[in-house]
Formats: sequence, structure tokens, C-alpha cells
Amino acid sequence: MIPKVIVDTDVGLDDAMALFMLIKAHKEGHIDLVAITTVHGNTTVDNVCKNTVRTLEATGVTGIPVFKGAHSSLVEPFIHKEPFHGWDGFGDVVFETVSDVSILEEEHAVNGLIRLVNTHPGEISIVAVGPLTNLALAMRMDPMFASKMKSLYIMGGNTEGVGNITIAAEFNFHCDPEAAFIVLKNTVVPTVIVAWELCYKHCEISWEWRKKKLGGLNTPQSQLLNRIESQYMEKETFPTWLICDQIAAAAYIDPGVITRSSEHFATVELTGRFTRGMMVVDHGKITKEKPNVTIVERVDVELIKDMLLWGADDSNSTYKVPV
Amino acid sequence: MIPKVIVDTDVGLDDAMALFMLIKAHKEGHIDLVAITTVHGNTTVDNVCKNTVRTLEATGVTGIPVFKGAHSSLVEPFIHKEPFHGWDGFGDVVFETVSDVSILEEEHAVNGLIRLVNTHPGEISIVAVGPLTNLALAMRMDPMFASKMKSLYIMGGNTEGVGNITIAAEFNFHCDPEAAFIVLKNTVVPTVIVAWELCYKHCEISWEWRKKKLGGLNTPQSQLLNRIESQYMEKETFPTWLICDQIAAAAYIDPGVITRSSEHFATVELTGRFTRGMMVVDHGKITKEKPNVTIVERVDVELIKDMLLWGADDSNSTYKVPV
Amino acid sequence: MIPKVIVDTDVGLDDAMALFMLIKAHKEGHIDLVAITTVHGNTTVDNVCKNTVRTLEATGVTGIPVFKGAHSSLVEPFIHKEPFHGWDGFGDVVFETVSDVSILEEEHAVNGLIRLVNTHPGEISIVAVGPLTNLALAMRMDPMFASKMKSLYIMGGNTEGVGNITIAAEFNFHCDPEAAFIVLKNTVVPTVIVAWELCYKHCEISWEWRKKKLGGLNTPQSQLLNRIESQYMEKETFPTWLICDQIAAAAYIDPGVITRSSEHFATVELTGRFTRGMMVVDHGKITKEKPNVTIVERVDVELIKDMLLWGADDSNSTYKVPV
Amino acid sequence: MIPKVIVDTDVGLDDAMALFMLIKAHKEGHIDLVAITTVHGNTTVDNVCKNTVRTLEATGVTGIPVFKGAHSSLVEPFIHKEPFHGWDGFGDVVFETVSDVSILEEEHAVNGLIRLVNTHPGEISIVAVGPLTNLALAMRMDPMFASKMKSLYIMGGNTEGVGNITIAAEFNFHCDPEAAFIVLKNTVVPTVIVAWELCYKHCEISWEWRKKKLGGLNTPQSQLLNRIESQYMEKETFPTWLICDQIAAAAYIDPGVITRSSEHFATVELTGRFTRGMMVVDHGKITKEKPNVTIVERVDVELIKDMLLWGADDSNSTYKVPV
Ligand SMILES: [Ca+2]
Ligand SMILES: [Ca+2]
Ligand SMILES: [Ca+2]
Ligand SMILES: [Ca+2]
Repeated sequence: MIPKVIVDTDVGLDDAMALFMLIKAHKEGHIDLVAITTVHGNTTVDNVCKNTVRTLEATGVTGIPVFKGAHSSLVEPFIHKEPFHGWDGFGDVVFETVSDVSILEEEHAVNGLIRLVNTHPGEISIVAVGPLTNLALAMRMDPMFASKMKSLYIMGGNTEGVGNITIAAEFNFHCDPEAAFIVLKNTVVPTVIVAWELCYKHCEISWEWRKKKLGGLNTPQSQLLNRIESQYMEKETFPTWLICDQIAAAAYIDPGVITRSSEHFATVELTGRFTRGMMVVDHGKITKEKPNVTIVERVDVELIKDMLLWGADDSNSTYKVPV
Repeated sequence: MIPKVIVDTDVGLDDAMALFMLIKAHKEGHIDLVAITTVHGNTTVDNVCKNTVRTLEATGVTGIPVFKGAHSSLVEPFIHKEPFHGWDGFGDVVFETVSDVSILEEEHAVNGLIRLVNTHPGEISIVAVGPLTNLALAMRMDPMFASKMKSLYIMGGNTEGVGNITIAAEFNFHCDPEAAFIVLKNTVVPTVIVAWELCYKHCEISWEWRKKKLGGLNTPQSQLLNRIESQYMEKETFPTWLICDQIAAAAYIDPGVITRSSEHFATVELTGRFTRGMMVVDHGKITKEKPNVTIVERVDVELIKDMLLWGADDSNSTYKVPV
Repeated sequence: MIPKVIVDTDVGLDDAMALFMLIKAHKEGHIDLVAITTVHGNTTVDNVCKNTVRTLEATGVTGIPVFKGAHSSLVEPFIHKEPFHGWDGFGDVVFETVSDVSILEEEHAVNGLIRLVNTHPGEISIVAVGPLTNLALAMRMDPMFASKMKSLYIMGGNTEGVGNITIAAEFNFHCDPEAAFIVLKNTVVPTVIVAWELCYKHCEISWEWRKKKLGGLNTPQSQLLNRIESQYMEKETFPTWLICDQIAAAAYIDPGVITRSSEHFATVELTGRFTRGMMVVDHGKITKEKPNVTIVERVDVELIKDMLLWGADDSNSTYKVPV
Repeated sequence: MIPKVIVDTDVGLDDAMALFMLIKAHKEGHIDLVAITTVHGNTTVDNVCKNTVRTLEATGVTGIPVFKGAHSSLVEPFIHKEPFHGWDGFGDVVFETVSDVSILEEEHAVNGLIRLVNTHPGEISIVAVGPLTNLALAMRMDPMFASKMKSLYIMGGNTEGVGNITIAAEFNFHCDPEAAFIVLKNTVVPTVIVAWELCYKHCEISWEWRKKKLGGLNTPQSQLLNRIESQYMEKETFPTWLICDQIAAAAYIDPGVITRSSEHFATVELTGRFTRGMMVVDHGKITKEKPNVTIVERVDVELIKDMLLWGADDSNSTYKVPV
């Protein structure tokens, strides 16, 4: 049976590329992308819906239902100051066309998640690459939701207290710390974490490769990415091209991506003055808590690069999803 | 037009009496009780559903839809130590009959709340006499929910830092502090608070009146109350018979109940070591925040006593709901 | 034996009047004011020292040693925005003379407190009418300090969550919450609290009385008070003239001042987002903690007014300190 | 001029070896160890005083004044559950002799620190290898203390959120989080941090070396260490012999020890539920705060091993303190 997956996303530059990879795998019949659920995060949920539709359009794939999800973090709305992905989540590019959001489902993403997971208990994995608000709401609306997923892949959190949005917190977790806390507290299925330190320290891809190789493809996917990442590529905000959500997508599609991982008990700090939203990992086995997450420590960067080209529909790609 | 109301409740001893009053007003055509939504709190939400059905049965009224709501507080489940209302919320009485929970709606209470309030925007008041989890979830699922209620009556919180479950917090708010915070933060319709200090200091009803007068009625309502409050009446846990949810119901049904009130900005402490769940009231107008709640300071206790007898179906009652 | 007392103060408008009363009692031989220790609070500790000297000068009394104490709150310096007592603590009045701070002791106030209390174990009461930094430091420098005082009178904290500097905290406690926490946690001698609610709700003295009666006295004390309180009297910031430190001084000098009090367990919230610095009182006896403070609930306002006139050296005063 | 240093310590197994190294350098005339100040931490301050005297006795050096310091953390006393260093800080060994604590100075360590640093402004470095209570008190007693040190070497805190006493905190910082916060907040002189991750990950010394090489020396120092570490060596609690305070002492004595370091802004979390006491390092330069600490990232382990043998008075040691 083809593995079923829902991607929960706040598209987003890296979300778009992650979606391309998941949709490619869907198109090739390796996975069944049963739904895309959207969530506030990089921008408003309304913008995220538009970006999701535009991303889908670039792939030419139709028929994957898109659900609109949570508009706000659970407890405190996150206030953007300098949104990394632009105010609209897509680099504030002016597009010639308008996203056709009429294709959105009427059902709320949280109800969609609950319905689908209950319809296929134990069969649906979720790749969550935005704030975890939808998943937390689903866990609170349906006490059995957590146990009916098949597995959970999360891009979010940090493992060494390194922050990218506050001094000690990663964006997705900090954006909705209570949601992240709820998800880690209640997860009972295999839960794989792609955390910030992995992304910025152990997955180096050169700007040159990004611009010439990935950016040089003559495909709608590559062209969309080049437009939305144009400011990012110009500024070269980081020493290398950073990818985040793409790693979570790759790790879900192809387990060979993960070359080192470890199991830990992890939770999320909610009340810290400096550390609110930080993922707290019991590295030293100080608590008696059982491991609840698998933390990805190292990835096969060359394999991921192959998958990125494949996901961007490179006609020369020889990458094959393992069966 | 008859005022529409939904009661959100964790039945519970005082919730049962509050329901009797609201159902009586419904029966007499003064209000339209369009739904009862249940929530965890005094006991599990499953017990609350059973208790709600049993309460309805005692009134002989049928046709009011009952929805099952949140099973857990948003962030941290509340752990009961010595549940005031008994482990089952109804004084751990052994009943001869089983509650017919088959009458429960299939729709989740939160979805029911959202659907009903959207169907009748600006028309439905909510009387919330349990932890505010359902309302908070509704506000997070639907960004317009808060503005589409007509008004909100809450039994919960405290105004002078007096606790009844921790040193500084009242039960309903402490049970789900984040939910209380979300509701107070997002409320935009008139919001009336019946807080703990009002209940225990300014609404004294003697045990004698409770036992002889209210308890002496030969009605199914009075008999149910006597059974579920039998331990409470025996122990006389407090110097007088304490009522809480009944005051919120009475204040909704008959504005004459409120003899003094004031408007304040109020919020809920989430991070305090001692004060988590405490309602924080800006008595001194220190913040620049606009008032978001009306705090009931004094009530007409004799009027409430009349309403209690009326609610318990006393055939001698001369109480009339004002039109 | 004449009771020994040290006053710990951040002079301060109300501190000055409180000092006048204590110095008067000292002059009349009813108490032995063995030291005045100064502390940051209403203004910098250097300004407080100047104000203390000026206050002493107005009484003509010499020989009471003055010690300079803590310059900063323990953990986080308090940042003034609109200092109630003026930037210099004395209404920003321009005086013709310079305070002779050369009379200050060389020894640090905390060392002075420790030395004096150890020299007279069980004999010295402390009247603390500023932030509790000095006392907390003394308790941390000398593990026996707390048990060697005779008694402790504190103006500070609140009993009903009413704030005067933040939404939920009183100035003296909020200014150094950790110090207040340490003092309440470690106190073992009788500890009397004059809290904010008592001052603003239950000790009403009219502006007219302040201005005509107290302000009309032709004494150096009254004249100093009139100068430093001139802005305060002009603005009439509150409906009545508020006194705070004066009540603590009066209660120490004459127990008849206290007409109602109760014993409670009390502590101080440190981590609350809204409630940091709030005194948390176990009104409901929810914790198992033993009472550690006596909270003054009502005072004899007329007696206090008599004492104020007496303290300001009114030649017509008939007030007598009880022996 | 010979560099002056004060060591502030909660002796302790690793403190004893650190003291041996500092005393050896003192004896050889490379440093002037002007005082040892003691502080609660691994055990009570009274036990620490005894252990300090016993450590001094093993070296045969006399004339270094020892001051007794803080008996308790500033805000909340730390409660030991399974003290790593034994209940008495010295492995609960039964000694034949009693420590002669009559040699202790009468002056409190905090006053001693303030006096010495004021007597030699800009000349005295402090090597702090226990909870930072004494230093925090000195900074609060004397506003100029922080600026009058020469430099500060701290063993404490963590850099990657790895805990050794709670899930996210290192012992010395967690033992008195407010003190650590105060010291990092107020430090203005060069401040070098030897954090937990350095100790357990980047300074591996085999148990065999510890037992045979260091433990095989026939010196009073080695013999004392073998006795107090006998349980530790038997259990081999960690995969290698962990050293902590020794690294801070070595880094102070010989700058060649530090092979890699970086400058950061760092502070201490006080309010986190999971992260209280964690050092928060601005790895990502997210805040605008200027660096306040130099974090030691790597050390020359072989050099440290040479220094350990030299400190333990190995007659074959060829180690020379650089001039
Ligand atoms: Ca994303
Ligand atoms: Ca209730
Ligand atoms: Ca004062
Ligand atoms: Ca140590």
C-alpha cells in the first residue's frame, strides 16, 4: 500500500520546495499525499493558502485537497518584526496571476486532519513544517488523534539552545510554544525531529549550487523558487543556503537521508523569560522520562541535493525513491 | 425575539442547579436554550455528559441538543486530588438508572458552538460555568467566533487573589488557565464575570434554607440535588451553602440579580509559581488597557433564593422572569 | 528597658513623616532609635541618604547613626518611569542648604544591621518602610539574623492583588520582589504587614486635614513636609491624602493603632508575567503552611491623625505614647 | 608584579585538585593567592570550610587566609538529593584528624572580597568554582566591586542546554541561578567561562590515567584525592574521569590551556519551568547585546594532565608555569 501522508505547512520559501518534493513523490506514486493543511506562521494563514495554491499550480498536479487551518497561535499571537520569508511568505514578489483559493476545502484543517486520521487509523504520517497549532488543536479536539497517526515528522525546535528568532528558540516552536509543548507531550507514534542546529550546522549547501544548479533548471518549480528566494539569494543572509523544511520532507520520503539520529525525551519551555519556545532535550538522561522523539543528528547532504533537483523536476535527475 | 443562549458546563453540583434554572426559563419561553455544551472540569467530560443527561431527565424537558466537548485542558491536564464534586461530579452517588448518553449529538461541542454562533450571529449568549476550554478552542478555530456571540456570562476567576483550589486561583480558571487567558484576551462582546469572592463572601445562603426550604421541595429537581449534594450537606464544608454557577445563570436570566458591578480590564496569570490561573484585575487603572469585563460585585441574594426555588420547580414559587 | 528599633527606609515623602514620628518617640524616651538604615527605592540610595539627613535636621535630634545601604534591588534594578516622590525622593524641591552626608557611618547598612542585631539579640525591632533589600542581604550574610530580631514591621505588599506600580503589585515589594520573598520566607519573629489595600482603602485622611491641620503647624517638620509634598498636594493624585509608611511607624509605636488584624501565610510571586512582586496571601487556608505574618486589616484613623500631629511636633498635641 | 588571585570555592572533589594547582603556583611564586573564600554548594559552607582547611593542610602551605562565605543561595536554598561529592563534599570519608577551622578569618567572605578588591583595584582576579553567591552578594553590597576585579574565571553554566543536575542546567549555576544571573549581568572585566559541555565532551581523561598516574603519586595531595574520590573512582560514574574546577584553575594559571574560545553575550534563565539556571548564550547573535563572556571551547588536555601531576606535587613533573 502506498504510504499516506498529510503535510501541515506555513508556506514559506522552504515549505514550497518541501512541497515540490512531496508532490513529486506523490506524482510518481511513491506516496499518497492525501491533504495539505495550512497554518499561520511565516505569514498569515490566508497568505499561506495563496502560497500553497501557487506552489501546487507550479507542479501541474491537481486533486490534492488543501485545508485552511489555524489563524493564530494558541495562547499568544506571534508578532512578526522582520519576516524572513517576506510579509506575504513568498518574498513579497508581485505575481502576474492571482492564486485561485476557491479550490480550498470548506472544512477546517483541524477537522480535516481529525476526519482523515480517523478514517485511516494508523496509516497517515504527518509532515509538519510550520508552527504546530493545527496538530495541537487536533489533539485537543480528539483525544485519540495522537494515537491514530502513523508517524510524525517535524521541522522545528532546537537541540543545543541555539535560537534563530529569539536568543534561545527556533521559529516554528517559538511561534506557538504551547502547541509544540502539547504535541511533544502527547505524541505516542514515532516522531522525528529536524531541528535548527541540524539545518544550519550540518547541511551545508553552497549558494553557488543553489543559484547555478538548482536555480538553473528550466522548470516551473525552479522558476517559482528563484522568484520567491530572489531577495534571500541576493542578500545571502547566511554563509550557505539554508534549508529546513526540505530536510523534513526528504527524511520522510527517503529514510536514507538520515545518517545519524538518537532518541531522547524532549519537551518545550513555556515560561522562560529567555527560553520560551526552546526545545528542552534530556541529553544527560537526567529525568526518568522515556524518549518521545528521534532527533536527526546528521543527514546525507549529497542525497538531499539529488532530491532537491528531482523535486524541482530536473529532467536529468536520476534520483529514485526507494521502494 | 426570545433570547438565545448556550450553556457550557462541567456538571457538577452547582451546574445542575444552574441548568435547572435555565431549563425552567426555557420551558416558560423566556429564553431559547439552543444547546448545552459539555466540558471536562469537575470530572471527566464523559461523566459530565452523563450528569447533563441526568439533569435534563429530571426536568422532563427534551429536545435541547447536548454536545460533548473538550476532554482536557489546553496545555496541561488538570489533575484532581480531592474532587469537591466527587469523582463522578455528582457526589459519587449510585443511581438506579443509567444516563442515556445516546441522545448526545455527534458533532463536537466546539464545532457545534461555531456553527450555531455563525448561524445566528450576534444573537446567542453563552453562559460558561466550567473551564473555558471549549470557548478558547472555538476562538482559535474560528477567528470571528468571539465577535459573533451576543454576550458572555462566566462563572470563574477571582478578583482579590483569593484561591479555592490553589493559594491564589479559582477552580474554573486554574483548571485551564490558558483557556481563560484566551477568552479574556479575545472577548469583544459584553462579558460578565461571577468570581469566587462574590460567591463565598457576598451570597450567603444558610444551610438550613438549603436543606429545609430548597431541599424540602417534592420535585424531581430537588430530589436530584439532595442526592448529589448529600455528602456536601452532611459535611457543611463551608459556613454557608455556597453557590457559584447558579449566580451566573441567575444573572443571565434576570439582570435584577446584579445590584452592583464595575468594569475592569482583567487577564489571567499563566506563568506565576503561586498565581498561575489567578485572574488579574486592574483595580488601580495602572495599565492603559480598556475594560473587557463587567465584574459582578454584589447580588440580590433574596431574589436568587426565589429563583432557586422556581428553578427547582417549586409549585408555590411566584417568581417571574422579567420581560 | 526602652524598646530598641532600627528603621530601614527609602526616604521618601511618607518615610519622612514616619521618621518624624519615630524620632519624636525616641526624643521622648519611649523608644531607642538605634539606627537608621537607608536603601534605594523611591530614589537612589544617595538621594535617600541626603533626604534622611535633611529629615533628621528638621527634628534637631542628633546622634542617631545613619547607614548607607543597598544601591540596587537584588536581581533586577528597578527602573523608575514617573517617580511618585519626584526624581530625588523629596518632590524635586530646590533646597537652600546641602545635606551634610558626612555624618553617615562608614559601615555598610547591612553590616550595621547584622552587628547591631547580634549585639542585642532578641531586642531590636525593625520598621522597614522601603524595598526589603537590606534585610534580605542581612539574612543571606548572617544565617542567624532573622532569628535575632525582636519583631518586624513592614510597609509593603498587597493583600487583594491590587497594584499601585504594576497591575498587581505594590511598590516596595515590586521594587525588589526577591528581597520581599526572602524576608517573608525566612522570618521567624512576629512580622506585621501594613499592605497597600489598608493604606488606600481603610485609612482615609482628607486633603483638607492634611493641608490645614497638619500643614498649618508652624514647625520645621511641618514646613519640610509641606515643601516636599507641595506637588502632591497640588495634584491631589488620590481622592484623599494617602499615608503608608506612617501607618507602619504608628503601629510600631502604639499597638492601639491596630484595630483589626489576622494571621496568614504569605509569600511573594516572583515569576508571574502580570503578578511579579505581588504578595500572595493564603486567605483560603489552601496550603498547609503556618502563618508567618500578621496583616493589619483596620486601623484607628483618628489615633493616627493625633500621632501625625504629635510627630510633626504640634505644641498642642496631647498624644501620649502608651507605656 | 605577581598576579593576585582569590579562589571562591565549594570544596568539593574537583575544587580540591583545583586548589592544589593554585597553591602550587602560589608556592612557586607565579601567583599570589591572596585569599580563599568559601561558599555553600557541593555541601554546607561549614563542611566546605573544613574541606578547604584539609586541602590546605595537604599542601603544607600556611598563611593563605580562608574566609567563610554564604550559607545559602540567594533566593531559594538548593536541596541536595544525591550529592555527587558526598554529603560532606569529600566523599563521606572518615578522617583520623579534625580540620582546624580556628584558622578561619572572622570577616565574612563577602566583606573580605570587597575589602581586598578595593585595596588592590584592578589587580585581583577571581577564580570562582562554586555557586556564585559570594560574588553576587559582593556586587550588591558594593556597586564598584564588579569594576574593580581584574578578571573573572568561572566554572559553571552550560553552552548547549545540556544539564547535569536538571534537564537543562549545570550544577553551579542551578544551585544559585539568581547569583549567576547577577554576576553575568554586572560583569565588566574579562570573564572566562568553563562550562559543562567543555568538561564532559572535550576534556577526556581516562580512568586509568586518573588511577594509575595521578593516583599513583606518593604525595599528600594525591593521597587526599584518592581518599575523597575513592567512591567516584570505584563507580566510574562517567565513561572518563570528569574534571571541572581543575580546568578553570588551569586556564587561569596558564593561558596556553585554552586552545579555542569565543566571545558571546550570555545570561541565565531564572523563570523557566525546565530551564531555570540554564546559561543562555546568544550563539546566533539574535540580541543586540555586547559579548560579556569568553567561552572556552577547547583545551589542551595533555597540558592539563601535566598541570594536574604538577599540582599534585609530582616530583617528576617538568611542567613550568609560563612567565
Ligand atoms: Ca515552514
Ligand atoms: Ca461548573
Ligand atoms: Ca518608603
Ligand atoms: Ca566546585
